[in-house]
Amino acid sequence: MSPRLEAMTGVQGVAGFRATGVHAGLKSAGRPDVGLIVSDHPGTTAAAVFTQNSFAAAPVHVSRQHVADGSIRAIVVNSGNANACTGRQGLRDALDMARETARCLGLRPEQVLVCSTGRIGIPLPIGKVLSGIQECARRLDHAIGGEISQAILTTDSGPKEADATFTVAGVEHTVAGIAKGAGMIHPNMATMLSFLVTDASVPAPHLRRALKHASDRSFNQISVDGDESTNDTCVILANGAAGGDELTPDHPEWDAFQNALTDVCQALAKMIAADGEGATRLLHVHVTGAASDQQARAAARAIARSNLVKAALHGKDPNWGRIVSALGATDAQVDPAILDLSMGNLSANVRLLTNGEPEVENLEAARALLDAPEVVVHVELHQGRGRGTAWGCDLTTDYVTFNSAYTT
Amino acid sequence: MSPRLEAMTGVQGVAGFRATGVHAGLKSAGRPDVGLIVSDHPGTTAAAVFTQNSFAAAPVHVSRQHVADGSIRAIVVNSGNANACTGRQGLRDALDMARETARCLGLRPEQVLVCSTGRIGIPLPIGKVLSGIQECARRLDHAIGGEISQAILTTDSGPKEADATFTVAGVEHTVAGIAKGAGMIHPNMATMLSFLVTDASVPAPHLRRALKHASDRSFNQISVDGDESTNDTCVILANGAAGGDELTPDHPEWDAFQNALTDVCQALAKMIAADGEGATRLLHVHVTGAASDQQARAAARAIARSNLVKAALHGKDPNWGRIVSALGATDAQVDPAILDLSMGNLSANVRLLTNGEPEVENLEAARALLDAPEVVVHVELHQGRGRGTAWGCDLTTDYVTFNSAYTT
Repeated sequence: MSPRLEAMTGVQGVAGFRATGVHAGLKSAGRPDVGLIVSDHPGTTAAAVFTQNSFAAAPVHVSRQHVADGSIRAIVVNSGNANACTGRQGLRDALDMARETARCLGLRPEQVLVCSTGRIGIPLPIGKVLSGIQECARRLDHAIGGEISQAILTTDSGPKEADATFTVAGVEHTVAGIAKGAGMIHPNMATMLSFLVTDASVPAPHLRRALKHASDRSFNQISVDGDESTNDTCVILANGAAGGDELTPDHPEWDAFQNALTDVCQALAKMIAADGEGATRLLHVHVTGAASDQQARAAARAIARSNLVKAALHGKDPNWGRIVSALGATDAQVDPAILDLSMGNLSANVRLLTNGEPEVENLEAARALLDAPEVVVHVELHQGRGRGTAWGCDLTTDYVTFNSAYTT
Repeated sequence: MSPRLEAMTGVQGVAGFRATGVHAGLKSAGRPDVGLIVSDHPGTTAAAVFTQNSFAAAPVHVSRQHVADGSIRAIVVNSGNANACTGRQGLRDALDMARETARCLGLRPEQVLVCSTGRIGIPLPIGKVLSGIQECARRLDHAIGGEISQAILTTDSGPKEADATFTVAGVEHTVAGIAKGAGMIHPNMATMLSFLVTDASVPAPHLRRALKHASDRSFNQISVDGDESTNDTCVILANGAAGGDELTPDHPEWDAFQNALTDVCQALAKMIAADGEGATRLLHVHVTGAASDQQARAAARAIARSNLVKAALHGKDPNWGRIVSALGATDAQVDPAILDLSMGNLSANVRLLTNGEPEVENLEAARALLDAPEVVVHVELHQGRGRGTAWGCDLTTDYVTFNSAYTT
């Protein structure tokens, strides 16, 4: 059902990182459900962003503490069970995952980040998870991608991987990442997870800043159904294995790193949106001319989130009325009388509003352009220089069926 | 498809108000599409709340100005065309509606409130509307209810009417109201409209306060799809025709009026939620023990709005994980470790979380209770004494079909 953005066959290996995934019995049919990512370099820095949900799952609480000092050597993850709303036992289980990983790898538990995704409110089958961790540790010989990309999936239609390279003073570096979708297809399945690694050397405070910049322009700009999960986690590890300069915002090539990271995050974010539950097309919403970048991003998000816009997208309906209605409900500074709006696809678009006045004769052309796997909405507000993009998907009867036909 | 809350056969006449509706040719098949409500008393006070959307329609701009002095004698309304995103011509058309109504009734245009609902972005067929107003003025002999209730509908499955009586110092008073749904069933159809009248005497500033209190606990607490319309309007006229005391918050019987008004607004709001596009059941969300009433209402709204909660409701799935996830994404003060959660219907409910711990053995009982036209969720936060209720409906494949299968 989901549109494939591109055929991904795996990401490049990144120096000094190993990973793997195994089937430990949490998911059915031998699918990998426990995974490990390890950096071999002692000085590896780390940064992470987590769900803001008050019901943050046990692994999120543990990981927030462990990443606070900016130093992580391993990420352990399981799918099939979110270890969320599981009380004190859930917290003990999440800590046990960190402890067992540390024991197998000769690390301290505080050097391990823990992630879970899957059903909410069901105790973690911790015995199976610990056995899976031990097997992962024995088999740790793979690059990022492949089995680890499979091990984090729940009901995603396939793995999501992206990478980018950049060169600093003659040294080539790589940023690679994997992700799983925000699609809460199955009841109580939740969570967006994204794991990023780079062989560049970046001090933790600057890594944090770079990750926030990138995630604000990628993962925080996608909407599948407007529902925020209890387990969302995005983390980056930087191990410096490629050698070369330490990167800080003062370095003349800082932007090369920042752009590569943002590119990888945006590629993964678009794959998540395109793989939303029941989705058949990807929506790009560009807002330009806003009073600020923040207003532009918020306006784009509101449009991409609107159920009515998403349903119109499914019907290939150039329904600009729903778009301006969603836009008007935000706090963005807007003057209906000077706004321009276009719709189309990746190769062509037509104007539907000019200075707030409908271009009625363009509706049929727009309708034809919307019959494409990727649809583009562009709103120019003429309020300033702020710009932002958000990505979403169409709302289909399959979304409703997926989310109502199954039971807990 | 929609659950009928009760068989409404019309509301009581309210002294000193006349109303009617006629078919002027904006909607198909002879259905009433232009309506008028008139108060015969010169001292009639008025208060209104409007959409906060930046793309507020032309009639909203006109009505905001006309109601500012707290004095309105007539409401004119058309359905079939929202007169929204229609530029300067739209503003002229809205003013012409007020002028023609005033001319027919011997009033000043500023004494007329104007409402439109229907398609966005299409010029109003003003000739038809003005003819309809003239015919309404000739036929103005009906009580609130009946034809006027029909004339405001778009794709609602039926009229929505409610009334309540209260007694002040031996004098019986009535509050009656009609409404049309927030269901944006047809593309570019939007808008919740609610018109309330009372024969009590209430000075405009206090009427404003009473309407805000009531609408904050009714119309502002319903969610069909989270999309806010360009035309939402709720207005109350008070003409004092019943005689008796002038009512102000200092009057010992003020609460009798306030409660009657809130009751009528809540009854109408529930009918709107139950008649949401594609809806098959009504959801009541009660939040108690919040740090404040405002937090309780916001939390209840967030739960009622969640697509995943709505889809689970459709599947009769006691999916408390989606409820706490939606709750956790709000700003409400919450401690997952002390929260209680119950689900059921209007006559029975079972506990699913106690002190944040799942009551797994109750899931099957809950599932059985959810097979009812009205489903109740109750969350007790144990943070304070704040309480609030919101109403929503289930998300069905019919919602998606309605909103994607038609074109502009």
